[in-house]
Order: sequence, then C-alpha cells, then structure tokens
Amino acid sequence: AKPFALIAGPCAMESREHALEMADALSALCGDLGIGFVYKSSYDKANRSSSASDRGIGMEKGLPILAEVRERFGCAVLTDVHEPGHCAPAAEFVDILQIPAFLSRQTDLLVAAAATGKTVNIKKGQFLAPWDMNSAIGKVVGAGNSNILLTERGTSFGYNTLVNDMRGLATMASTGYPVVFDATHSVQQPGGLGNASGGQREFVPVLARAATAIGVAGLFIETHEDPDNAPCDGPNMVPLAQMRGLLETLLSFDRLAKATPINIG
Amino acid sequence: AKPFALIAGPCAMESREHALEMADALSALCGDLGIGFVYKSSYDKANRSSSASDRGIGMEKGLPILAEVRERFGCAVLTDVHEPGHCAPAAEFVDILQIPAFLSRQTDLLVAAAATGKTVNIKKGQFLAPWDMNSAIGKVVGAGNSNILLTERGTSFGYNTLVNDMRGLATMASTGYPVVFDATHSVQQPGGLGNASGGQREFVPVLARAATAIGVAGLFIETHEDPDNAPCDGPNMVPLAQMRGLLETLLSFDRLAKATPINIG
Amino acid sequence: AKPFALIAGPCAMESREHALEMADALSALCGDLGIGFVYKSSYDKANRSSSASDRGIGMEKGLPILAEVRERFGCAVLTDVHEPGHCAPAAEFVDILQIPAFLSRQTDLLVAAAATGKTVNIKKGQFLAPWDMNSAIGKVVGAGNSNILLTERGTSFGYNTLVNDMRGLATMASTGYPVVFDATHSVQQPGGLGNASGGQREFVPVLARAATAIGVAGLFIETHEDPDNAPCDGPNMVPLAQMRGLLETLLSFDRLAKATPINIG
Amino acid sequence: AKPFALIAGPCAMESREHALEMADALSALCGDLGIGFVYKSSYDKANRSSSASDRGIGMEKGLPILAEVRERFGCAVLTDVHEPGHCAPAAEFVDILQIPAFLSRQTDLLVAAAATGKTVNIKKGQFLAPWDMNSAIGKVVGAGNSNILLTERGTSFGYNTLVNDMRGLATMASTGYPVVFDATHSVQQPGGLGNASGGQREFVPVLARAATAIGVAGLFIETHEDPDNAPCDGPNMVPLAQMRGLLETLLSFDRLAKATPINIG
Repeated sequence: AKPFALIAGPCAMESREHALEMADALSALCGDLGIGFVYKSSYDKANRSSSASDRGIGMEKGLPILAEVRERFGCAVLTDVHEPGHCAPAAEFVDILQIPAFLSRQTDLLVAAAATGKTVNIKKGQFLAPWDMNSAIGKVVGAGNSNILLTERGTSFGYNTLVNDMRGLATMASTGYPVVFDATHSVQQPGGLGNASGGQREFVPVLARAATAIGVAGLFIETHEDPDNAPCDGPNMVPLAQMRGLLETLLSFDRLAKATPINIG
Repeated sequence: AKPFALIAGPCAMESREHALEMADALSALCGDLGIGFVYKSSYDKANRSSSASDRGIGMEKGLPILAEVRERFGCAVLTDVHEPGHCAPAAEFVDILQIPAFLSRQTDLLVAAAATGKTVNIKKGQFLAPWDMNSAIGKVVGAGNSNILLTERGTSFGYNTLVNDMRGLATMASTGYPVVFDATHSVQQPGGLGNASGGQREFVPVLARAATAIGVAGLFIETHEDPDNAPCDGPNMVPLAQMRGLLETLLSFDRLAKATPINIG
Repeated sequence: AKPFALIAGPCAMESREHALEMADALSALCGDLGIGFVYKSSYDKANRSSSASDRGIGMEKGLPILAEVRERFGCAVLTDVHEPGHCAPAAEFVDILQIPAFLSRQTDLLVAAAATGKTVNIKKGQFLAPWDMNSAIGKVVGAGNSNILLTERGTSFGYNTLVNDMRGLATMASTGYPVVFDATHSVQQPGGLGNASGGQREFVPVLARAATAIGVAGLFIETHEDPDNAPCDGPNMVPLAQMRGLLETLLSFDRLAKATPINIG
Repeated sequence: AKPFALIAGPCAMESREHALEMADALSALCGDLGIGFVYKSSYDKANRSSSASDRGIGMEKGLPILAEVRERFGCAVLTDVHEPGHCAPAAEFVDILQIPAFLSRQTDLLVAAAATGKTVNIKKGQFLAPWDMNSAIGKVVGAGNSNILLTERGTSFGYNTLVNDMRGLATMASTGYPVVFDATHSVQQPGGLGNASGGQREFVPVLARAATAIGVAGLFIETHEDPDNAPCDGPNMVPLAQMRGLLETLLSFDRLAKATPINIG
C-alpha cells in the first residue's frame, strides 16, 4: 500500500504570493518525503462563526491561483464548495471538490460535485455516524462518480466539543473508499471562543498518530507559517516549521500500519 | 402574552389538492382554538438520507401552491430554503423563510434570507449549543433584518439520536427573539433506519408539553392524515385526527406558562 | 392522581439544629401546599469531587437526627447509602434508602437496600439509558421488594455537562414505578469547577416545569437558607425563601398534568 | 522507555484450573514477547447488568487462586474491589487493586485502596472527563499512596455507547502517572443487549493500535480460549489464540511510539 498522501495548506487563501509560498514549501517537503501532495486552501469561508469574520478572497480570484499552484508545483489542488452552482466552475481549476461536513447531507451539492467527474472528498458531518456515510456515498455514486474520499473530522460530543471515534476510520474504510483523517478540524472547539471557534493544536500529533496507526489513505493538516496571526483556524493549525518533523514521525507509523493492515470485515 | 402559534403541515408538499385540504383542516382548527397558524410544507427535500428518497414537487410548482394557501385561508406560509439564490424567489410567495438546521452556519444563506425582509426562522443546528445561535442571529441582524424566529429541534447525542436540552429554550429566549419548539424533528432518529430516518411519534406530546410549560412562542408539528403512508417523516408526524386533542392540552399548559413566565435573564 | 410529593432538604446535614430548622420550614410549607413531604439530607458525602471537600457529620450522628425529624414533623425521611453494610442500620431510622446515581449498577447495594423492605429510590446513572433502569428494578424486585422510586438526574453529555432527556420520564414511568425528577442535580456541572462541581440554579425552575408538565410522582429539590455559603451543591440549590413561589407554580402545572395524563404505552 | 505491560486474563474467574491454564498461557506469551505481565481476573462481578447474571466464585475462593497464580508464574496479579472493606483482605493476595470505573468517585474506596500501599489502578468513570481524574488521584495521593495507574475505558456517548477520546490518553499522561488503555471495555456496548452488555470485539485491534501509537504504559485486554461461551464479556473478549499476533503487532507500534514520545505539556 502507498504511504498516506498529505492534503495541506493554509485554512484560507490570503493572497497569490502567500499561496505560492505555502505550496512551494509543502510541495518540496512532500517531494522529500516521497508522499503525494494535495494543496488545499479555501477562497471563501462560507460558514464562519460570525459575519464579522473575514470571508476570503473569493472564487474568481481564488480559482486561478489554485490552478497556478497545480501547474507550477505539479501537485493536485482541492477546494471546498458550498453551492451546487459552484461545482462546475471550481472543477475547471481543481482536482478534488470537498463537501464541507455541515453540508454532507445536501443532495444537490453532492450530485453537482459528482457530476463534474472530479474526485469528491466528503467530510463526515459532525452529526452523522460513520455508517451514515453510506448515504452520502450513494448519492455521489448514483450520480455516476465513484472517485470518492471520505474524511473524518470529529463528531459532536456535548456542546462546543468534538470527539474522534477512531472506530469510524475502520467503519468508513470498510466501504472500500479511501479514508482521510483531518487532524486540524478534529481539534477544533466549535463556537468555543464565542464569536469564533477555538482549537487545541497540541492534540494534532496525538490524534494524527492514532489515525495513522489504524491506517489512512490521507492526512489533512492545515498549516501556516504563523498560525497565531492567520485569518482563521489559528488555534488548530500546525506551524509550517513543525510539519517536517510531524510528517516524518507519522510516516514511520504509516509504514508499519500499511505492513500490518487491519480488516474489520 | 399571546398563545403559541402553530407552524404545521405535512412534511412534504404532495399535490395542490393535498396542500389545500391540509391547510383547510389546520386553518379551521387553529381558528377554533384562537391561535395563529402558519402553514408549513417543503416543496423540495434537499437533505434526504438517500438519493432514492422522493424529493418533492419542486420550487416552481410548490411556491404558487403556498401562495394559494395563504390567500385562500388567510394564514401565513413558511418554507425552507437551501441555497442563497432561492431566497428571493421564495420570498415572493411566503412569509417566513426557514433555515434548515444543517445549514444554520451558512452565512450566504442566512444573509440572502435576511435580505428579503421576510421573517427568518433559524433552526438550531444539531451540532450547535443554544448560545451558538447568537452568531446566526448576528448574521441576519447584520444584514438588516431582525424578524427572526429561533427553533429548537434537538442536539446530536451519540449516534443516530437527538436530545432536547430544555434549558436551551430559556437560553435562546434570553436573546429576545421568539422561540419555536419543533416537536416533530426532535423525535427523529437521524439515519436510524439505514436508508432513512426513523422517529418516535409517541414522544411528541411528551416533549411538546415540556417545551410549552417552559414557554414558547410557537410550536412546529408536522402532521398528515395518514403518516404511515406519507412520503417522508412518517414515523414522527402526528396523525391529523389527533391534532385537536393534542393542541387543546398544550394550550392549557401554554396559558399557565404565559401567566407565570420564567426569566433566566 | 395525587399531587407530586417533595423530596427536599439541604445537600448535607450540617447540625441537628440546622436539620430541624430546615425540616420545620419545609414541612410547614408542604403542609400549607397540601403535598407529601420527604426530608432529605446526606450525613456523608461519599463521592465528592475532592478529598478536601467536607464529608458531613457521619452516619452515627446523622441517622438519629433524621429519626428526630421524622418524629417531630411527621414526615418521611430519606438518605443515601453507599455500601451494602450501611443499608440495614440506615433502614432503622429512615423511610427511603436512596441509591446514588454512580452506584445504580452495584448489585450488592441494590439488593441490600431491597432487603430492608424500605422504599428504594434508584437514581438513574449518568451513564445509563432510561430503559437500562429495568435492570436495576429487576435487582430490587428480585430481592423481594417492589417499593421502588426511579429518579432522573441527568445523563452525561460531553464533558462536565449533563442533559435531561425528558423522554426518559415517560420511558421510566412506563415501568409502573413512580418517577421523581431531581431538579438540583440535573443542573449540576460535574467537575466543572476543577476541584468541585458547578451548577446553574437558574435552570431549576425551567427543568422542573418541563418535568412537572410531563407528570411526575415527586420532585427532588435541594434547598438551603443561604446556598452560596452551604457546604456543598451551593451553585445548584434553591434558596429556601424561593421555595414557596417555585412550588406554587409547579403545583399548578402538576394539577394540569395529572388531569391530562400522557401514556406512551 | 519500557514496552507496554499487559494486563490480561478472563473477565471472570471460572475455576482454579481455568485460572492456572490462562495464566500459564499468558505468562508464557508475555515472556516470549519480553513484556511485563499482570494477571487479571474478577472473582466477583458486582455490577452486572442483571441479577440473573453469574456473579463469580467469590472473594474467599478467588483471592488464594490469584496468589497461587502469582507464585507459580512470577507475574503480578490484579483484581477489582467494590467496597472499602474488601481492600485490605484483597491486598494480602494481589499487587494491584483496581477501582472500577463506576466507582471512580467513591472516596472511601479510593482511600481504602490507597491505604493498603498496593498499586491502585483507577479506571476513568464513563461520566468523567480526563482532567477530572486529578480529583481521583488527589484522593489516593492524599491517603499517602502514589503508586497509581490510570486506565481509559471509554466515555458515555449517547445511550448504550462508549467512545474513546484519544486526547484523554495524553491528558492523563500529563499527570505523570502511567496510563493504561483498556481495549476490552472500550468496545463494550453497555446495556446494549437488554439484560447484558454487548460488545464489538472486531474493534479491539483498531483502538489498541491507536492507543499504542500515542504511547501507553499498559494495555488491558481480556481474553478467553472460547469467548462466545465465557460467563461474561464474551462479545468483547479476544480469543486467546489471537493474542500473540495482536500483541506482536502492537509491540511494533509501541517501539515506534516509545522512540518518538509525544509531550503535550
């Protein structure tokens, strides 16, 4: 089995320069480590806690930047989509359309994403059981597309708290589709700061190891050269300077996990 | 204080005839009981568990039927909206635009609904704490609209289960906006039937009483003359024939609650 | 149906004088209101968050005080028991032995309490579903005692938080045993203050109304003349001076609920 | 750092012969693997779902068998204690006294166990947050004993379901006390079979890997030569014949984890 691929980038696209710098650094790092790389960035933060939060640079400016990243660094690029009508335009520029967790039951969005033929990364809703993802899968497959990724990013656990049920990685893997572990949003504390979501960056390595040991096809880790001054998800992004060390350790667990696969049948 | 208003109707719009029959019966009932009535029906079930589930008769056919209900029975009408672009067209026909719980953090949808000037009924996401609704309110108010209703419909509690935290009714009421209790979706068992959501109709009176005793501005109860053969939400809809008895009892609790209001300030 | 009985008293027994004063006041109040009264107080707080917390005056001193309360005021008295060996001695002095929620699966304790022939009040564990109480009931009935009360006091909901699933009142009532709602511990925030448990006294009337409207045989409300200076449960006890007003309102809901019983059969 | 120790044995002590056979097999296996071994078995199942369930062979017969296991195989032995008065007698025969999760807030039990001077293994209550264990630790340390183990065995997640929050392993490790992961009870479905608890044995390797990758001092795995015919916990025990393969894989993750420790500060 192949090593995990890394889906990474800053939470929000800040500027063309910033995107290229981040992609350059991450692409070089993944090249060194011999792992696949998907550049991820959102040009529109459509479900911020508050309207006062910055929304990002927008679709028209953002999509060409993603395409430039793809071309220049030879990596795949991913962005999230929030309305059915955005899927086709986004698909002209990116390789993977991501369905946000809150929207994982929106049939039209799933179908529109599926119809582009691009890979669809469905994040498991915080309100869904792992086995409920079969319904989301069914909607995409029913629209003729079986290029699907499933991403775990935590389940509601009381108020303002998420928990990762690690059994869910195995349950979702039993569908046959590749499973991604999103270590960044799993350590989010939704609504935990009143007008914004808090986070616990210190648990990223803890949870990422656990997931990697079980065996995942991909890891999703948002990163930034200066998370504490990033426009969003600062408390849960990993500083860029720590990514190499983190990934090297995770790769050693990944090699072991791939050599001794679990099958929960 | 006024008695609670009833937001009611079948889960999905089935046909013009069915809509008029249901609205006729419910409007007459609410007239008898002296309570406000809002006819509710969805012309599009956008987040069904499965693609194979029926989606409804669609926006173009559905909206004029709602307008006809309004005109013929003199009641308000409500429908849910799933995309920003649907808000303005729907607003031409209905009085209240409802934001589905799953979409309660989608800024564009909240803002587009707000921009119509119509009342916006925001259902609390299953993944939100009651106090998190301040963010949703802020998005609507920030768009210049303070005609807001807040609806409780349950919070994620483990897998395939919802729980109503009744404290949340008081917490949401402390915002100053009217609070609605959705007794139908609170007894839903999301994903509980594999390809569909289950429900526990027998708990509708239990939970509706509890909410009414605390004090609510509105009750949301889906109903159907034959729930077990309805196209959706059958297990949690109340048979039409039981609505009068249910509401009469709830109104006696409502009178008492309004005479002895709680203020958790 | 009879009005609810009140199980009340201070969280911990502080002294003979304090116990008699509290019992005097509460007994007079319940007499005025025409409701049954059970005096409740713990002589030993066996599961405090911290060892540094005060444990109470102890069994040897405490039991005779409860007996004196019973004799002087003609009320029933209740205390909680924490070990099988404590059941028989306590039963010589009290009418109701209460099984703490944490201990609701301890077979020996349930059986020893049952063996005394006294009424056994089983608090539903925070980790149990309402239907799991059938097992606890079975242990007591199996020991030859069917004088059982079932008490709802909240279910674990994420960390340091409880939620009352009001459906559980109906589910537990369907066993045929009287159901008590514990409004005091339902608003506890277990461990929420680090070395102690916090509480939200302001939600006592909210939740007690909801429960009363569904229909309960008893209400459990801890009270103190000065909760903020009480040795335990201060944040969730109701000031004694507010009890009359609270109970009068709850009784009006109780009358209505008893006149229109729910049967979820 | 040392490899994890294994705490293992059948859920319930069935007979002297069975105990010696199991201990022989497990002790030989741990010897082969070069890991510490603690034989675990309960002579009394004090919190079974139902009174009809078998309770075990009892303390008087059980303790000498544990002592014989210790002497014959040179391993440590562990049993759980349910009443303060049982701690001193048990301590004469065993090395580790285990506080059951339901009893993790019972001060007298913690103090009595501490007073024996034996190691005290405190299981985290299903109703506790990881940080709440500081209170339990404080009670044991306050009684003069700092030989403490902390065991994760799942947290209540809705009804009849547990979830392991893997962050809790790191949080508990930050106390400085050794952390054990109980893979057997973590896959229990409490009350899930009506009169008994269900289980999902297939997730033992999944969760044990995740925990081992984070880094634990011990693993707790109940095992039986024929789990489906065992007197308790059959659905979540690992067949004895699969233990070697499971442990070998887990040890490879353990070596990696110990070579690259996480410190969440």
